Amino acid sequence: MKALVYRGDHKISLEEKSKPVILKPTDAIVRVVKTTICGTDLGIYKGKNLYMKEGTTLGHEGIGVIEEIGNSVSQFKVGDKVIISCITSCGSCSYCKKQLYAHCEDGGWILGHMIDGVQAEYVRVPHADNSLHRIPDTIDDDVAVMISDILPTGHEIGVQYGNVKPGDSIAIVGAGPVGMSVLLTAQFYSPGIIIVIDMDDNRLEMAKQFGATHTINSGKVNPKDAVLAIVGKEGVDVAIEAVGIPQTWDLCQDIVKPGGNIANVGVHGQKVDFQIQDLWIKNLTITTGLVNTNTTPMLLKAVATKKLPLKRLVTHYFKLSEIEKAYEVFLNAAKENSMKVIINAD
Amino acid sequence: MKALVYRGDHKISLEEKSKPVILKPTDAIVRVVKTTICGTDLGIYKGKNLYMKEGTTLGHEGIGVIEEIGNSVSQFKVGDKVIISCITSCGSCSYCKKQLYAHCEDGGWILGHMIDGVQAEYVRVPHADNSLHRIPDTIDDDVAVMISDILPTGHEIGVQYGNVKPGDSIAIVGAGPVGMSVLLTAQFYSPGIIIVIDMDDNRLEMAKQFGATHTINSGKVNPKDAVLAIVGKEGVDVAIEAVGIPQTWDLCQDIVKPGGNIANVGVHGQKVDFQIQDLWIKNLTITTGLVNTNTTPMLLKAVATKKLPLKRLVTHYFKLSEIEKAYEVFLNAAKENSMKVIINAD
Repeated sequence: MKALVYRGDHKISLEEKSKPVILKPTDAIVRVVKTTICGTDLGIYKGKNLYMKEGTTLGHEGIGVIEEIGNSVSQFKVGDKVIISCITSCGSCSYCKKQLYAHCEDGGWILGHMIDGVQAEYVRVPHADNSLHRIPDTIDDDVAVMISDILPTGHEIGVQYGNVKPGDSIAIVGAGPVGMSVLLTAQFYSPGIIIVIDMDDNRLEMAKQFGATHTINSGKVNPKDAVLAIVGKEGVDVAIEAVGIPQTWDLCQDIVKPGGNIANVGVHGQKVDFQIQDLWIKNLTITTGLVNTNTTPMLLKAVATKKLPLKRLVTHYFKLSEIEKAYEVFLNAAKENSMKVIINAD
Repeated sequence: MKALVYRGDHKISLEEKSKPVILKPTDAIVRVVKTTICGTDLGIYKGKNLYMKEGTTLGHEGIGVIEEIGNSVSQFKVGDKVIISCITSCGSCSYCKKQLYAHCEDGGWILGHMIDGVQAEYVRVPHADNSLHRIPDTIDDDVAVMISDILPTGHEIGVQYGNVKPGDSIAIVGAGPVGMSVLLTAQFYSPGIIIVIDMDDNRLEMAKQFGATHTINSGKVNPKDAVLAIVGKEGVDVAIEAVGIPQTWDLCQDIVKPGGNIANVGVHGQKVDFQIQDLWIKNLTITTGLVNTNTTPMLLKAVATKKLPLKRLVTHYFKLSEIEKAYEVFLNAAKENSMKVIINAD
């Protein structure tokens, strides 16, 4: 079969690889129908991930059809169309019992990281019963791909950890796919003011269409001043960091009000300065995290009934045989005006 | 009357000052019976507090007897023996309605900071109805002084914000008066392993008597290694910072497990490094804060019935006329083996 393989710093290649087989009775083999590229895949491409070994297939987002199941898989059968969750989890270790699936002792984020991922024709999914989700007929296939990772990430690590409440003022720093997922799922909880901050006017325009009450181009105005001009000098109830660089973290520290929350969703490559000499007194709650996908079943119901405009996040389509081109387009997001790219099976 | 007045960097002096008078109908004038010194008073003495003006009386912890009340005070009468809460609050602004009394729009920590404090013969307490607490006969006067600030600080900002739960492993970094308050109030919630870390063997011995299951002298062994040797390589459920320097913050980052909490209680004088490149993935909750004293009524009931050994925190007694000597003893805590000092009215 074809698979996109990591070959070291800035080297990926579509190669022939043998089709995966069942290794444990809890495994399923899934024929991949659609996959996509995540910001963390770019991190791997750029050689930033210490755990990724050369020869591993990339990718942790996608949907497919079950081809084969292990003897102890009870929740799925061959032929089921499923979302492959970016997090695989056993469901029974001490972390899983707290729904901290991200830290499963026999799972977590391992697809396209510790084991072969979904940017291939087939993938072996460990602990299938707890790591796959059947796709209802009412959900479009492209939309379903967004529920592998970005929608639950925005919802759990941005909105739920940030404790967004009715009437709150919230600021979302970064209008990429995950920032947009925060924006869409935040509205489940009826915040009053939703400010989206980015440097790309196209993304800000999309944010407005997705429900932002205010947008700020941080490349054109001082974003701190602009936020405080909207909500008052005390700041926002919730600041959500969806970029992963020191500047955006700093902005969140600058705009959060006493008693407020900073929810960090961005994946960072370096330490940040925590201005605790000013912030110790502010009764803040700061959260970090990798998605647990514990809210995926809830999100599936919400997406099916609320008809979120997730499909509009998809800006480009490719075939698996063109996946290297898809990486180029995703890498040059500003130039290509790309958001999410869908890679269909050939 | 006599009052201890701030006269600029490293200068405090016991001076004659006019007795305070009722300025607003919500005020009470309290004759101070006992006061004490807080670590933040030392910060003021050392010139670290930008808001403290020369000529202001120090102190925000104490008990006394009400001498006079304003026309609209309804919960107290002249002659009542009361705890003067370190936080005064109106009870009706937007922050007070969230019980964020620390951020009251007409209060917060202002005693001995923005207005004259309690290290004097008399003090004016604004918003008396919401800022004083009647002392039940079953609570010793010295113990009551500990409920002005340190006990609710340890309980709210350490234990509650840290989300200490039955069976949890917790590490308390710093065994000063606030660290000891964390230790005592954490036990209300039945954690399984309580590790106290400090550099002073006398304090660690007291921590053991107060319920620590393990103690670590961080001046003698590597505290990270010692904590992980006790709880396993994943770390503790809750790390509570009760010192306020970069090294102790760093230790908390090093010993908290995925899904865990870091509760910062210490007052910091400089920024710290937040190792978000390693910690973003750990699903941490980090909290900071100034005490709200919203749990003071609950703590009064708990102290009255549970008989916490708070009186043993008091190591030295002085009279108000000797308060400058009391500061010296408190400043040289290690040498003097001092914890809390009580300053009685002359």
